[in-house]
Amino acid sequence: MKLSIADLANVARGAAFLGTGGGGDPYIGRMLATSAIQEFGMPQIIEPHELDDDATVYTIAMLGAPTVLSEKGASGEDVDLAIKRIEQYMGKKADALIPIEIGGVNSMLPIMAAARQNLPLVNADGMGRAFPEIQMVTFNVYGVSCTPASITDEHLNSMVIETGSAKRAEDLVRVTSIEMGCSVIMSSYPLTGKQVKDYAVHGTLTMALEIGQAIERGRKEGEPVESLVNYLRTTPYYNQCKVIFDGKITDLRRETSEGFTQGHCLLSALDGSGKTLEVTFQNEFLIAKEDGVVRAIVPDLVCMVDRETAEPIPVDALKYGQRLKVLGVSAAPIMRTKESLAVFGPQAFGLDEEFVAIEDL
Amino acid sequence: MKLSIADLANVARGAAFLGTGGGGDPYIGRMLATSAIQEFGMPQIIEPHELDDDATVYTIAMLGAPTVLSEKGASGEDVDLAIKRIEQYMGKKADALIPIEIGGVNSMLPIMAAARQNLPLVNADGMGRAFPEIQMVTFNVYGVSCTPASITDEHLNSMVIETGSAKRAEDLVRVTSIEMGCSVIMSSYPLTGKQVKDYAVHGTLTMALEIGQAIERGRKEGEPVESLVNYLRTTPYYNQCKVIFDGKITDLRRETSEGFTQGHCLLSALDGSGKTLEVTFQNEFLIAKEDGVVRAIVPDLVCMVDRETAEPIPVDALKYGQRLKVLGVSAAPIMRTKESLAVFGPQAFGLDEEFVAIEDL
Repeated sequence: MKLSIADLANVARGAAFLGTGGGGDPYIGRMLATSAIQEFGMPQIIEPHELDDDATVYTIAMLGAPTVLSEKGASGEDVDLAIKRIEQYMGKKADALIPIEIGGVNSMLPIMAAARQNLPLVNADGMGRAFPEIQMVTFNVYGVSCTPASITDEHLNSMVIETGSAKRAEDLVRVTSIEMGCSVIMSSYPLTGKQVKDYAVHGTLTMALEIGQAIERGRKEGEPVESLVNYLRTTPYYNQCKVIFDGKITDLRRETSEGFTQGHCLLSALDGSGKTLEVTFQNEFLIAKEDGVVRAIVPDLVCMVDRETAEPIPVDALKYGQRLKVLGVSAAPIMRTKESLAVFGPQAFGLDEEFVAIEDL
Repeated sequence: MKLSIADLANVARGAAFLGTGGGGDPYIGRMLATSAIQEFGMPQIIEPHELDDDATVYTIAMLGAPTVLSEKGASGEDVDLAIKRIEQYMGKKADALIPIEIGGVNSMLPIMAAARQNLPLVNADGMGRAFPEIQMVTFNVYGVSCTPASITDEHLNSMVIETGSAKRAEDLVRVTSIEMGCSVIMSSYPLTGKQVKDYAVHGTLTMALEIGQAIERGRKEGEPVESLVNYLRTTPYYNQCKVIFDGKITDLRRETSEGFTQGHCLLSALDGSGKTLEVTFQNEFLIAKEDGVVRAIVPDLVCMVDRETAEPIPVDALKYGQRLKVLGVSAAPIMRTKESLAVFGPQAFGLDEEFVAIEDL
């Protein structure tokens, strides 16, 4: 896969869609990636199978409150330092970088980092979507240690942690990130090439780009949502997808608490049927229920797009009266295993409902 | 200097006195040190001048809420891990360990650590007393970097931080320690032998022991406070000392907030003169004012002892009606320089009063 600067707008749009309402606004990430590419050149994008089994692959991501991520951005030096610190601690130079989540801003930060570091970037990630906590990733499900993990801030303070569990790392990094100004750069889950091949969700950078392109194409053709759905049906993971609701927001409760944007919104059907859809979120959209019946549930993707332009709408941008189409989209098979559901299934978010795949709903 | 297990009770008592009300109860530290010595043998105690200038000397301390320190203790493995992590990060094995503060529990933890690690322990520390925050140490005043610093907990989670300032390290370690259960083991301010010689407060382990012995001797002779004062007058730092008040507690306000034990107590004179002394504390006693006039002020030591037994009374053990003698004691000269006062003089604790040496009050 080859990327151009012009492609970044579509990657960002696709990443916003896969961010299912969360993951941070990719716009600022796109600006950072663009400027890094202009200075250092476009990084090489490689496929997992191109990695040696014993290659050293580091993740790179922003972590914190999405609103702050968008405001603070990253200086570049903080990204470089996070990679340097994990390299020092591991005693191994990176052979490649990989996004930990393709959804939202963390699709873009690795492009920036790979450009600055002159390292190849792997076309894959650890979830094929976005999730709010660092233990919620396939690498953790399949036994890759979350730590050592390096954390840096814009003042170039740094930290390397080693913990007994990813959840413990999450707790520590969360308080640290708040103290560091609600947004930090982190490199966690140091991986081997073999682990990337076995546990990553492959090809997601390509899919983010192509989702963006499908929306753009659809706008020219006059049916952006249809174009998006048609494209998703051709993908290896997102092929089970449907528009589960077409409505407008009639109620919205959204609060920032415990470091997350939490709440729910209610949509009323535009077809006059009187049907309503309730969508609950914790950074990301987690569950959509039509008059009490589950229509889509995490880890499958619940996505909201503008009903006319198919622009993905993040939780932060939800507004009363907004007219949206809500999509349910299948997650990658590795995200739906029993082991994965134990880590980021509905119960991990405090939901009572069991996971049922979108194609069975 | 040679220590025996029997000496530890007196070192602990002297350390409690030098802790000026804070620093954590040395009792639990004494138990930990005793058990480590029984298992691994008594560590060698060396003087600063015995170190090579380029020797590698690491500090080791507990940090957190004093009440929790006393309850949680340290497993030993957490202490070993803190030293291992700083050694790994620095790429240098320790040649010796040194207490960062002689007051309170952190006089004892380095004895335990040195026994476990079979390393010499330096007869010196970074303040000759106790202080609540990690930037409040001569090493920081004279330009030694607080970081890299390693932090571990009893579950053997670990962290190594590097920050631009000791205050930044303090802020980060404080939130981390709360998340880690309000008590952690830390190795900060990695030192060279030369830095120990130049910036440490020398001989404080000996003085802690001898303070304890003076109190013990005084009890046999019937005048423990007098024995204590007589001994202090023979020391190189604590020689300016006086009993500034003899009274009983008539008012006590003590609260735990922002991670510290803060408040003040009021004493009424026992001689019927109607005089009162107000002592303000933040973990440690900071200032003693008699009817509004300063009698002793930080960084000089304000110490409270039982008026009959000279037992040092920590802030946590203050009680209404308690009969106490309050002592003002000179800090080491290196603690009273302009540079030192900028870091841990009265203003660093939010006090309005200027520092005036005890001998000038």
